[in-house]
Amino acid sequence: MAHLRSTLSGTQYPLNRIEEFSETGESLEAEIPGLEHATVKSATKLWERFADFLPFSRMDADCSLGEGNTPLIRADTKLRAFTGLDNLLLKNETQNPTWSFKDRGSLTCMFMAREMGERITATISTGNMGHSIAAYSAKAGIAAVVFVPDFTPAEKLQAIAIHGATVIRVAAPDYSAMKQHILSLASRLQLRIVSGNGPLRVEGYKLTAFEMYEQMQGRVPDYVAVPTSACGHLRGLFKGFRELHRAGLISSLPRMIIVQARNNSPIVSALKQGRHHIIPFVNVHTVAEAITSGNPPGGDELIEKAQRYGWLAEDVTEEEILDSQRRLARSGIFVEPAAATSLAAVRSLRMQKNISPDATVVLILTGSGLKDLSVFRLHPHEILDSDLSKIGQDVERTIAAILKNP
Amino acid sequence: MAHLRSTLSGTQYPLNRIEEFSETGESLEAEIPGLEHATVKSATKLWERFADFLPFSRMDADCSLGEGNTPLIRADTKLRAFTGLDNLLLKNETQNPTWSFKDRGSLTCMFMAREMGERITATISTGNMGHSIAAYSAKAGIAAVVFVPDFTPAEKLQAIAIHGATVIRVAAPDYSAMKQHILSLASRLQLRIVSGNGPLRVEGYKLTAFEMYEQMQGRVPDYVAVPTSACGHLRGLFKGFRELHRAGLISSLPRMIIVQARNNSPIVSALKQGRHHIIPFVNVHTVAEAITSGNPPGGDELIEKAQRYGWLAEDVTEEEILDSQRRLARSGIFVEPAAATSLAAVRSLRMQKNISPDATVVLILTGSGLKDLSVFRLHPHEILDSDLSKIGQDVERTIAAILKNP
Repeated sequence: MAHLRSTLSGTQYPLNRIEEFSETGESLEAEIPGLEHATVKSATKLWERFADFLPFSRMDADCSLGEGNTPLIRADTKLRAFTGLDNLLLKNETQNPTWSFKDRGSLTCMFMAREMGERITATISTGNMGHSIAAYSAKAGIAAVVFVPDFTPAEKLQAIAIHGATVIRVAAPDYSAMKQHILSLASRLQLRIVSGNGPLRVEGYKLTAFEMYEQMQGRVPDYVAVPTSACGHLRGLFKGFRELHRAGLISSLPRMIIVQARNNSPIVSALKQGRHHIIPFVNVHTVAEAITSGNPPGGDELIEKAQRYGWLAEDVTEEEILDSQRRLARSGIFVEPAAATSLAAVRSLRMQKNISPDATVVLILTGSGLKDLSVFRLHPHEILDSDLSKIGQDVERTIAAILKNP
Repeated sequence: MAHLRSTLSGTQYPLNRIEEFSETGESLEAEIPGLEHATVKSATKLWERFADFLPFSRMDADCSLGEGNTPLIRADTKLRAFTGLDNLLLKNETQNPTWSFKDRGSLTCMFMAREMGERITATISTGNMGHSIAAYSAKAGIAAVVFVPDFTPAEKLQAIAIHGATVIRVAAPDYSAMKQHILSLASRLQLRIVSGNGPLRVEGYKLTAFEMYEQMQGRVPDYVAVPTSACGHLRGLFKGFRELHRAGLISSLPRMIIVQARNNSPIVSALKQGRHHIIPFVNVHTVAEAITSGNPPGGDELIEKAQRYGWLAEDVTEEEILDSQRRLARSGIFVEPAAATSLAAVRSLRMQKNISPDATVVLILTGSGLKDLSVFRLHPHEILDSDLSKIGQDVERTIAAILKNP
């Protein structure tokens, strides 16, 4: 039987623990028994092929919305030239059912909710997480409660509410006070609050590693770059590779690249300063809205692992984020600003010669650009205004300008 | 060598014709030689496996953004009960690179642009088409020009412009006058204007049929329901099945279901009245904004095929569209209003006993709900307002209400 273990002190907990952290705030993770004998089965669904690696006793197919199976494509010449990396690969997680990587974690949350017979699941979110939990709860027939701060744009709330979730908009002086209040309330009511670093979500993010293992025919990328906020996504990806290694299916591990916005870099700052604890950021502002945990619970574990395994870490400026978003779009992929951070990060790391030019580097593109159109209000792209009286001229001038370029 | 053929009178044109219709306004389609000997090859990419069925002499993999490979899942019990169809399947095309089915057609447009050595491609669009063409042009290294009417919301323009397309916003008294003006301008300048019913896009939409053939292990659905505006999508799906049949890979054809909003039903109205020509709609207003061609060029061909092959046709009210959008979301899938039309349509057809309860029916879910959030302004979903002083009460009341339901 699988159980949970706290990641620094090693305390054990049952797999069905309601709280997602240890009493002292450490991240938890599922310990899978018998990994050394685990094999990949022949089956249609990813989670069935890798069932030996998963801790659930029930995995109901009707919890799935068809998440995963996202493309892993080689970056085009422009992006390869920009980064100086010839083997740059893009894993496009925006092609998930709610258009972000969160869906993989929501699937495993629903597996567990079904296993436990839970009728309600809850989360605190302003964006991708709330949307994904609302959609997956709807599919699994479980009620969802989504707490949102009152500064969340109305349209994001609607995209959550349409799934039938109860959306509770909470007026509160600050976001972390609100979070703390809701977490203790939930603990008292034995209501499971799902967060970005929960051990069951981590099991879902492992599936991305397994999928990449299949897509790369067993080869292991040298680096995997992940925009990092609550830590669960990066933890899950690495745990997936570690477990493949434990099972003898791969002979090396990728080095992870922790990417944060410079304006909110509690983990990257700590690593750059050689510290063992995160440096909390308060009242952060960054265009990378999907990665704004300024004080991520369980973040110390990521620092410990980064030091132990020789991971890289890089922060990027607001200008670099916007530039990267534009560059990815000009190569065909429109991601939200948070998802664009890793492009700028790997370029910096390459310029500093921390990555060799022939390394295989995967960028995980975490969420769709449609998730955050507000960025355009401050940073608009050019539009050409015309009318029927001058459109002939305008088009001829446009064509001439295009054809003049080589 | 493949060529184009006009679909009613049979006139032949070269495959590389710039204009997408015959001189008399008929739809064109590619005639593929040797289909009776066509086989499915073993290859990684869908278009490589079905190369025998495609008219292109070059299919450069670097034109692809990883479109397709979208899930085909069985509808949940709620949707099966609502429609009365036990074998209701959902093909979720919102999981494409720009989150609509358009990407499959844009891929084949780029194949042709590369084959022709074209350096510019253009389209007239307010939404999904403009976005998809902009993204695929960026990937293929071809300049894109997107003409948009001046009533298009600024955020949609930005999502097109970020890809590097030249977005020309045209002030004009009415949309079809603007379209006509641009089409003749383009013809004079030999600029290819890509539209939703172009013969090369149709070749891309065929790939959805091929993918479903693989996903269903060679079985053929009884019905395929498609929200229909410019006709190209439905034409492509059917052409795919017809060519599989020609090659002897399937022994029957699905019957197509043409779905339109009642407020804009030029094809469905004509079919219901037994006419042979579309009934143009002007100044239409419907929440299903992605299917608003009121006078689709080439639409008569669809009427002819519907009568010849015994297809079904249904229109749906504004209320039914909004209700269907909500129902799909409450089963986990958030689509734009246009994509929701087919759910209401197949329910009506089942109620009228035009579809038997054991028929296998596929709904093609065409575009993501994130594409059109404006619908929420007029039709908001409920949000619960709270604050730290009463959140305890609010949560307890919410939980009690949920648990009271069986």
